[in-house]
Amino acid sequence: MWQYEKKLQYPVRIKNPNPKLAKLIITQYGGPDGELCASLRYLSQRFAMPYNELKGLLTDIGTEELGHLEMIGAIVYQLTRNLTMEQIKEAGFDAYFVDHTTGVYPVAASGVPFTAAAMQSKGDCITDLHEDLAAEQKARTTYDNILRSPDDPDVADPIKFLRGREVVHYQRFGEGLRLAADRLDSKNFYAFNPSFDRKKK
Amino acid sequence: MWQYEKKLQYPVRIKNPNPKLAKLIITQYGGPDGELCASLRYLSQRFAMPYNELKGLLTDIGTEELGHLEMIGAIVYQLTRNLTMEQIKEAGFDAYFVDHTTGVYPVAASGVPFTAAAMQSKGDCITDLHEDLAAEQKARTTYDNILRSPDDPDVADPIKFLRGREVVHYQRFGEGLRLAADRLDSKNFYAFNPSFDRKKK
Amino acid sequence: MWQYEKKLQYPVRIKNPNPKLAKLIITQYGGPDGELCASLRYLSQRFAMPYNELKGLLTDIGTEELGHLEMIGAIVYQLTRNLTMEQIKEAGFDAYFVDHTTGVYPVAASGVPFTAAAMQSKGDCITDLHEDLAAEQKARTTYDNILRSPDDPDVADPIKFLRGREVVHYQRFGEGLRLAADRLDSKNFYAFNPSFDRKKK
Amino acid sequence: MWQYEKKLQYPVRIKNPNPKLAKLIITQYGGPDGELCASLRYLSQRFAMPYNELKGLLTDIGTEELGHLEMIGAIVYQLTRNLTMEQIKEAGFDAYFVDHTTGVYPVAASGVPFTAAAMQSKGDCITDLHEDLAAEQKARTTYDNILRSPDDPDVADPIKFLRGREVVHYQRFGEGLRLAADRLDSKNFYAFNPSFDRKKK
Amino acid sequence: MWQYEKKLQYPVRIKNPNPKLAKLIITQYGGPDGELCASLRYLSQRFAMPYNELKGLLTDIGTEELGHLEMIGAIVYQLTRNLTMEQIKEAGFDAYFVDHTTGVYPVAASGVPFTAAAMQSKGDCITDLHEDLAAEQKARTTYDNILRSPDDPDVADPIKFLRGREVVHYQRFGEGLRLAADRLDSKNFYAFNPSFDRKKK
Amino acid sequence: MWQYEKKLQYPVRIKNPNPKLAKLIITQYGGPDGELCASLRYLSQRFAMPYNELKGLLTDIGTEELGHLEMIGAIVYQLTRNLTMEQIKEAGFDAYFVDHTTGVYPVAASGVPFTAAAMQSKGDCITDLHEDLAAEQKARTTYDNILRSPDDPDVADPIKFLRGREVVHYQRFGEGLRLAADRLDSKNFYAFNPSFDRKKK
Repeated sequence: MWQYEKKLQYPVRIKNPNPKLAKLIITQYGGPDGELCASLRYLSQRFAMPYNELKGLLTDIGTEELGHLEMIGAIVYQLTRNLTMEQIKEAGFDAYFVDHTTGVYPVAASGVPFTAAAMQSKGDCITDLHEDLAAEQKARTTYDNILRSPDDPDVADPIKFLRGREVVHYQRFGEGLRLAADRLDSKNFYAFNPSFDRKKK
Repeated sequence: MWQYEKKLQYPVRIKNPNPKLAKLIITQYGGPDGELCASLRYLSQRFAMPYNELKGLLTDIGTEELGHLEMIGAIVYQLTRNLTMEQIKEAGFDAYFVDHTTGVYPVAASGVPFTAAAMQSKGDCITDLHEDLAAEQKARTTYDNILRSPDDPDVADPIKFLRGREVVHYQRFGEGLRLAADRLDSKNFYAFNPSFDRKKK
Repeated sequence: MWQYEKKLQYPVRIKNPNPKLAKLIITQYGGPDGELCASLRYLSQRFAMPYNELKGLLTDIGTEELGHLEMIGAIVYQLTRNLTMEQIKEAGFDAYFVDHTTGVYPVAASGVPFTAAAMQSKGDCITDLHEDLAAEQKARTTYDNILRSPDDPDVADPIKFLRGREVVHYQRFGEGLRLAADRLDSKNFYAFNPSFDRKKK
Repeated sequence: MWQYEKKLQYPVRIKNPNPKLAKLIITQYGGPDGELCASLRYLSQRFAMPYNELKGLLTDIGTEELGHLEMIGAIVYQLTRNLTMEQIKEAGFDAYFVDHTTGVYPVAASGVPFTAAAMQSKGDCITDLHEDLAAEQKARTTYDNILRSPDDPDVADPIKFLRGREVVHYQRFGEGLRLAADRLDSKNFYAFNPSFDRKKK
Repeated sequence: MWQYEKKLQYPVRIKNPNPKLAKLIITQYGGPDGELCASLRYLSQRFAMPYNELKGLLTDIGTEELGHLEMIGAIVYQLTRNLTMEQIKEAGFDAYFVDHTTGVYPVAASGVPFTAAAMQSKGDCITDLHEDLAAEQKARTTYDNILRSPDDPDVADPIKFLRGREVVHYQRFGEGLRLAADRLDSKNFYAFNPSFDRKKK
Repeated sequence: MWQYEKKLQYPVRIKNPNPKLAKLIITQYGGPDGELCASLRYLSQRFAMPYNELKGLLTDIGTEELGHLEMIGAIVYQLTRNLTMEQIKEAGFDAYFVDHTTGVYPVAASGVPFTAAAMQSKGDCITDLHEDLAAEQKARTTYDNILRSPDDPDVADPIKFLRGREVVHYQRFGEGLRLAADRLDSKNFYAFNPSFDRKKK
């Protein structure tokens, strides 16, 4: 279970609204490579992980991604405060606005609601760790693309923090994959799934 | 942000595998009225809530639902441990198994992956609280339906705990709605959205 | 069964095309809180409703929402008549146009096709009526958001009519919920589902 | 707008529950080639139809399909009345039951919620009529497949009626296509879209 | 199986980037009436086609549509080369960019990822050929709509080629339908499905 | 463009129908980790790949996966030939049958239609190759799970061939990733995207 601590993992203090930017950044809330997808992937995969170190790793990172989801929500919220209808229309934020006002809702930048089809939990530790390595690279690229907009430092600063965390997670999953591969009898590599075929070991 | 506490909100200790039951209960993991949908709804809506008591209420309940999601994951995982292929086929669990082995993946009982289309975050405090009251009733009904199967007490016990929590949340959202309605100038009822039209107040 | 009467429930006579506005209003045709979703929800739920008054209520309102769906279709159609390609592009209507020309197709403002995932029919009269109360509030908020655009009175007029009807429906569902609660033995509140557990009564 | 007439287009009186069959027939409620999809397709396409005869044809058939949707709902409801939990489990109806009890909800036989992605409204009268001819053949095939189960005459009888209506609709859409083709200047066949390029005529 | 031949079916050489146009044309990559949907439809349907001529027809056209998919991918890619962030934002290409940079990903113009819900493979040769005739008309209309933009001849030229091919495929499917109808015993028209009821013939 | 060669990459000759097995194997046709998803991923990603060796690698493997898709289609088709209605019902194949008869349609084992949401094309060569490595592991696990059913050697044989190919592809993508990493200036690792930021190199 989780305890809520009433602070963001990294501070978000945005002075100027920018609904155009909010429309893009929200993809890290509900998009295919966003923080919700990441957190849900890791917190789901951990049940079937065969080794305690890997269960712990997924729980740690999955919990941290929840905090990142909250940061992204805070960024989107702060970027859409005190808007006038003219600002909303001019920014092309009106399609989002008509259905959600300025409430935070999990969509991709395209406006497509979050779907778990973008993630996998395969019940195979080797496979799941590959999925996780790919997920971190995909999230990193999305942050790279957000940072290509020459934007407000109030926004760029927490985004850079989040991008940095993805790189750290990528490295930790790499170590996790090495650990898992070492535990498997090398002759049996891929011959059984340690998360499922318990008795064969 | 959240801190993980390494225990379940309520203990789950299931001795006998039962993939047929796991197939149903998983709907409270990734189905339309499940714990993921609940948690995501509340944790998303809170950003636009105009009153601190309501922000706090949504954060509290949203955080608790994360712990419920974990409990459901633990139930599904324990119900599918140490299965043989014969048990998997006989239970009709094979369609799930072929794509996820016994990993936990967010689907409804139908096998449809979780979609955020099943929730709303409307940026209007009156509306969002109605959405939340309905959500708790829908979750309560799903738990009722699970409990209609005369099953293992190891399973029924935590399910009853979870059902009880939905009823408590329903009552707390009812109090939240009363609070929100009281704060609105009665002459202006529905004439503006307190979460958006700040200046008009 | 239904008989078609060749008139709109409330007249729609729009003189000036406005594809930008059409893009938003179409969300009440095929979006998550739109008229199709409402009509389908009520007309589906009525089969399992245990009391004739509630069956009748859902049939009435579900039938009226069909007429609202037609009104929204007429508004969208009239707002997109006689457009030039320049108007289509300038309004950002081109993404819709390339796939549907100016045909009316059930999408949300985001462009996402209608999905029944946005509604529930839970087979529990208490729960379904909560779902319906929330649905009316969500539709009301969407109409509020449409009306925040200082637009053509030819459009605002029928939209205000539709918004007013949602408020009336909300009140009628409130009365329906009171009726259902009264019929349930108070000691058994939530202890059985009157739409399913017939014999236990 | 529509008026509800309190009778089914064709009587449905099923004496024996059969949840296994209900699970299949529901695909004509919310599946890809079902009555909801048909009705929504025709009632949406009619706005952009350039000729009054075709507008009328789509309105007529679209309205009749609403009545068919109601008949299918009634069949599903009657097939799932008075079930015990044992019957529900044995029939494999439990996955549906856990999320909807015995409420009627628009899904395909697979359990996938209705999506408008299964239909098109293309804003081109020639194209839309082809879509409609295909739709009637697809619905006819689904009814053929339902009728391949040697089932209860109480069920087969209304299904045969519905199948027969699809064949009639197919023929009427064929006549509609002939009418549309005749109105187009033969030299300009496909050179413009009569539903959009009004001025070129 | 397929062999790749390293050339496009028709040359694509676009000198000037135009992300606004790329956003529309991509709908023929991953949209509801696009080349992927066409190819997948025909290559899937052929397995159950009862006559070798029809199997061959579907294989031929399905293979050609793969080549069209490649052409559309090349057009989208060439229209988005060497862009600056300013061009990306100005064109409204930023929502696509943030999730896919300038990689080619199968979406509709609306940004919705490709879904096979837009096609059918019904296991009935008469029905499938009607589906195919409709598909070709829908694709033809989309190309018509793309060509309504007075655009770069470098783009219009291959688009016209692709539009022309859809018309040819439409005619070939018409011949296929005639062949299938002729083979069916006229008295048994629609009385059995030649793709399934083999023994009844 | 592609040329069709009228033979399967590896022979499929199944003597005995087995719709229960067909229902599982079809997930490699239209499921999240299936051959369609693989082929579409690689053939889409190649446009933005910056190096010719990687473009070639993706084209090669993407083309081979098309051939695998065909093999899976053939397996599903042969496993569902000459069925009686009794066999269809007993195997639980009836939900598929009612909508598709025995036509081949791209679904997952759950019955969910194929969605491109299960893949990514990120426009970043490092990221896309990680996605591809994960994809091959996920496909490998699915084949492992299929092979856990003690089935017909007529089926197991081509499935083993396909599983073996995934392992080979995994290795080739590993070499591709090494090549891509070597080409990047090591100091700039992750500092720019070679598929997009051409001028910075």
